[in-house]
Amino acid sequence: MNPRSSFVTFARFIALALVCTLALNAQAQSDPLPSWNDGAAKKVIVDFVQATTTQGSPQFVPPAERIATFDQDGTLWVEKPMYSQVIYCLDRVPAVVKAKPELANVEPFKTVMSGNREAIARLSLQDLEKILVATLTGMSVDEFRAEAAKWLDAARDPRWKRPYTELTYLPMQEVLQYLRANGYKTYIVTGGGQDFVRVYAERVYGVPEEQVVGTAGATKYGYGKDGKPFLTKEPKLLLNDDKAGKPEGIHLMIGRRPMAAFGNSTGDREMLEYTKAGAGARLSAIVLHDDAVREYAYGPAQGLPDSKVGTFTQALYDEAKKRGWVVISMKTDWKRIFAWEP
Amino acid sequence: MNPRSSFVTFARFIALALVCTLALNAQAQSDPLPSWNDGAAKKVIVDFVQATTTQGSPQFVPPAERIATFDQDGTLWVEKPMYSQVIYCLDRVPAVVKAKPELANVEPFKTVMSGNREAIARLSLQDLEKILVATLTGMSVDEFRAEAAKWLDAARDPRWKRPYTELTYLPMQEVLQYLRANGYKTYIVTGGGQDFVRVYAERVYGVPEEQVVGTAGATKYGYGKDGKPFLTKEPKLLLNDDKAGKPEGIHLMIGRRPMAAFGNSTGDREMLEYTKAGAGARLSAIVLHDDAVREYAYGPAQGLPDSKVGTFTQALYDEAKKRGWVVISMKTDWKRIFAWEP
Repeated sequence: MNPRSSFVTFARFIALALVCTLALNAQAQSDPLPSWNDGAAKKVIVDFVQATTTQGSPQFVPPAERIATFDQDGTLWVEKPMYSQVIYCLDRVPAVVKAKPELANVEPFKTVMSGNREAIARLSLQDLEKILVATLTGMSVDEFRAEAAKWLDAARDPRWKRPYTELTYLPMQEVLQYLRANGYKTYIVTGGGQDFVRVYAERVYGVPEEQVVGTAGATKYGYGKDGKPFLTKEPKLLLNDDKAGKPEGIHLMIGRRPMAAFGNSTGDREMLEYTKAGAGARLSAIVLHDDAVREYAYGPAQGLPDSKVGTFTQALYDEAKKRGWVVISMKTDWKRIFAWEP
Repeated sequence: MNPRSSFVTFARFIALALVCTLALNAQAQSDPLPSWNDGAAKKVIVDFVQATTTQGSPQFVPPAERIATFDQDGTLWVEKPMYSQVIYCLDRVPAVVKAKPELANVEPFKTVMSGNREAIARLSLQDLEKILVATLTGMSVDEFRAEAAKWLDAARDPRWKRPYTELTYLPMQEVLQYLRANGYKTYIVTGGGQDFVRVYAERVYGVPEEQVVGTAGATKYGYGKDGKPFLTKEPKLLLNDDKAGKPEGIHLMIGRRPMAAFGNSTGDREMLEYTKAGAGARLSAIVLHDDAVREYAYGPAQGLPDSKVGTFTQALYDEAKKRGWVVISMKTDWKRIFAWEP
């Protein structure tokens, strides 16, 4: 092939690539949120992204400041009947008791070992805290990671008999991708354990480990028998990433006020309030679980059944309406809930 | 212009752009670290980057795991005669005393207000802590940011009469850029205040605020008279990001063990040790200040004068040699130290 015809071939290739790219962009632009029904919630999200990322828009936000934060339990994935990390901790109790047999006759471990579900459900917050400390601390960060990864592979949720990591909401996965495609850095800001969520955040949500902000304990630097340094998870709380702890955690870990925040419960109230109070265009959105058929229905906002997990009070609903947060109705706004639905 | 000739013009433009890009790449590839003299230190850095980023290399590291951490004071910029943040705190004392006149006759504020440099230099660590608490906490995070930014604009270092932000080491700026050009996420991991360094990290080092890990205090979420939420800096230490606190802070804020780490003092020892102990290719490097003419000379490693700021002991030097950390000699390895040098 002479250089001239080689160049023509190359130019054709470039032209074809450009056409393909433009076609893909046009397709993406036609509907960035295909699992959402057309409605107010979808429109507010799309309008926000366009206003903050279109050059020349009065509300344009430089890429470096494009931070979006997402609560996890109840916002990105199912939190009912119980937070999956709590189930992990309960499932770890037999291993803890095996390592320390003296715990077998000590509460709350005795109750957990009995397998009596009703008695376990009645455990107090203090009891639960003892279980969390026993199952989430005392090991190296690498050991914890390996244990959590193994559990996530094997565990199945009681309703759909699927791995917990498959119980993410497709419409929210689309929002994560849509924001990232428009230069946003997406963070998880969860009341759950930072180290726990980091185990799967990249694989499940495309969120890198360093973009997970969660409830975090101290670690302690030390040396193994081989002289190699490692970190041990300590029973000392550094950040309780819930309620006011969410904006505080965002400042500690990110340092910028988010442009957009998504939540679903009273634990997200301050994060949504803090986000929306920033200058310029801001998006605060809150998921209402009002779909008992396809997922769960709980509030008690809007007359929905009360819930200890993921409480969404009427006062929170009223604040959302007053402050211009988007209330996302699972029933009305979401065409599909899970990727594996028929 | 007919479509055909328009396409030819476009193809020419693409071809020209490609030629320019290739030429720039060739130049960059010819010497990614032009301010470094050819020597062992430069070679180890270049070899590390090539080994970890070349597809098919046995030591190839996926982009998501490419994390590099840099101490700031003495590693990225000048720390002598005193850490610039300490000078900031001393400079803020008159404003604090003006707001609380009762402090004028209370130590250590009285000594600072006297302007007696020798007496100020003799202040104890406890005295210094009182000054840090008085000048770094009690205000909103936005007020602190504004005050620090104003000071950074106006303040000049005593030796070169330049803004502190111009006292960064050109060879290290090149390492930051070189790593980023090869897919590394660069973090600052400093004993200095996280909120202080965040004010200028992006502008000065190209490091985004969320990639600054530093000594961090708690904040408190509250509401102003206008009802708007804001965060107040509290006198409660969350992370002392020095010595063992550096790997602990890296786990808290990043969650991954760095592939490369750069430091210059005993405060960086654990970070360098932790980094190098990871699996696969790892780079730990330590800057030795042995250039009294162009910068400063202090150790006391290798017979250099002792120093309270940025101490580099002989034991640390011996550990560096034993564990295969690169010792970077400012005098021998760096062709130029500052970008503004003639």
